Amino acid sequence: MPLAKCLLHSWATLSMVVTLAMPPADGVAQELPSPDGVLGITLGQLAAGDCQMVDLTHALNDKSPFWPGEDYQPFQLRTIATLEKNGVSSKAFAMPEHFGTHLDAPCHFEQGQPTVDEIAATDLFAPGIVIDISMQSEMDADYRLSVADLTAWEQAHGPIPRRSIVILNTGWGRHWTNSVRYRNQDALGKMHFPGFSAEAARWLVKERSIRGVGIDTLSIDYGPSQDFIVHHIINGAGRYGLENIANLDKLPARNFFLLLAPIKISGGTGGPTRLFAVQPKNK
Amino acid sequence: MPLAKCLLHSWATLSMVVTLAMPPADGVAQELPSPDGVLGITLGQLAAGDCQMVDLTHALNDKSPFWPGEDYQPFQLRTIATLEKNGVSSKAFAMPEHFGTHLDAPCHFEQGQPTVDEIAATDLFAPGIVIDISMQSEMDADYRLSVADLTAWEQAHGPIPRRSIVILNTGWGRHWTNSVRYRNQDALGKMHFPGFSAEAARWLVKERSIRGVGIDTLSIDYGPSQDFIVHHIINGAGRYGLENIANLDKLPARNFFLLLAPIKISGGTGGPTRLFAVQPKNK
Repeated sequence: MPLAKCLLHSWATLSMVVTLAMPPADGVAQELPSPDGVLGITLGQLAAGDCQMVDLTHALNDKSPFWPGEDYQPFQLRTIATLEKNGVSSKAFAMPEHFGTHLDAPCHFEQGQPTVDEIAATDLFAPGIVIDISMQSEMDADYRLSVADLTAWEQAHGPIPRRSIVILNTGWGRHWTNSVRYRNQDALGKMHFPGFSAEAARWLVKERSIRGVGIDTLSIDYGPSQDFIVHHIINGAGRYGLENIANLDKLPARNFFLLLAPIKISGGTGGPTRLFAVQPKNK
Repeated sequence: MPLAKCLLHSWATLSMVVTLAMPPADGVAQELPSPDGVLGITLGQLAAGDCQMVDLTHALNDKSPFWPGEDYQPFQLRTIATLEKNGVSSKAFAMPEHFGTHLDAPCHFEQGQPTVDEIAATDLFAPGIVIDISMQSEMDADYRLSVADLTAWEQAHGPIPRRSIVILNTGWGRHWTNSVRYRNQDALGKMHFPGFSAEAARWLVKERSIRGVGIDTLSIDYGPSQDFIVHHIINGAGRYGLENIANLDKLPARNFFLLLAPIKISGGTGGPTRLFAVQPKNK
């Protein structure tokens, strides 16, 4: 056995001992790396492509769905220079902060909370989990994640890791290229799409100390919401929300890691965010 | 010794053997993780804050310096809603793609090269090195990095790792809050700030297979450039450039890792980029 392979083998064996020897202590997950776990992936592996990477970001263009209302406008891209005419290709753009795959900073709905440029770098890198409510959402476009859904997820997959990012896969991502279907407005203009319930948001903050929440719709509150109670709970606790996340059907329920990178607008209430998920490579 | 500590100790010992046993084979650096090296940092450590993180991104505002010319305008931020009036705080913004801390996609200066949304995720995570030319730039604002500077850096710090990102610290970052000084235009409007030379850019691409280059000025080409030869060399090789990088005085010469996250504009020639450097924690 070559030296490197032998040592890797030893490391795997040792790590397995750590994993077996140190079970979750307090009902929430342990955060030690394990040989098959995403938390054990090194930056060296990231650089070498020795992991799976999923881009959870929708590309921005003038077809991207956005929040209804006269103050919101489509993504605008204007040509400044072209290779043919100017020898350089360059453009300018305009967009609302809360547009495309984006982050809601804690100040979005609550006084005295951090703006987007004030979110600590260490809060932007965290393990993630996906809760699939696409079946429920197919039956009821106004479906809201319940605490029972959360405990059922934990029974199937183990405790939600502390300080993780909890994402709902509602199946809405497949409507992204059809703005009308994505907004799903009724005759009165009220939108209908799934979201978190207030109880589930409170439970995640209080019982699982999550870093943030995310969803594949226009809002972490369900479509008909008028009080935006989930935004208030999440932002009031100093946590952020992620909206219009792409490619959630490509993620497992757990064992992936999120790299979040919101645009750094001084005093911004949020902004377009590049969002990547890292997973161990299939063996 | 507790079990976990003992195992970490064993791992450190084993890794040291790997490092010692496998010297650089071909004159460019090996990429195996070492216990003191940044490539050995795990995602678990990233999530736990068990590393140093430097945000290399300038916050965007209407004072941010930008490229001269009538087609370039200051960063604009417009209020859509406020907590006081509307119960929610929300804004919209407008900016050129090539503004603030940003990435030049390979298509910026060359036909048939990737747009910003087409850059592979695996090319956005890489080890970095910093070459300090702040002394030379202090003496000569039009200083250009030479191949001799590169070989001198390698003599002092070892080979430049393959597929890394090579960043120049010119000292220009300290002028960021003073647009006039940052542009440094003479009576004829010509700008004066340091950059890469064509020879150094070619050497980095051909001899060290770098992923990209970066700088703390408005351009990877030096201020007086009219032919933008460095842009053509870098973009022509399918590589990207990073401009207006912040906080370079907080980085060592090597042993840090870069997480790059450009905004995902469909067909964009570049765009504002969140840029983080990860380093091992000081022991």
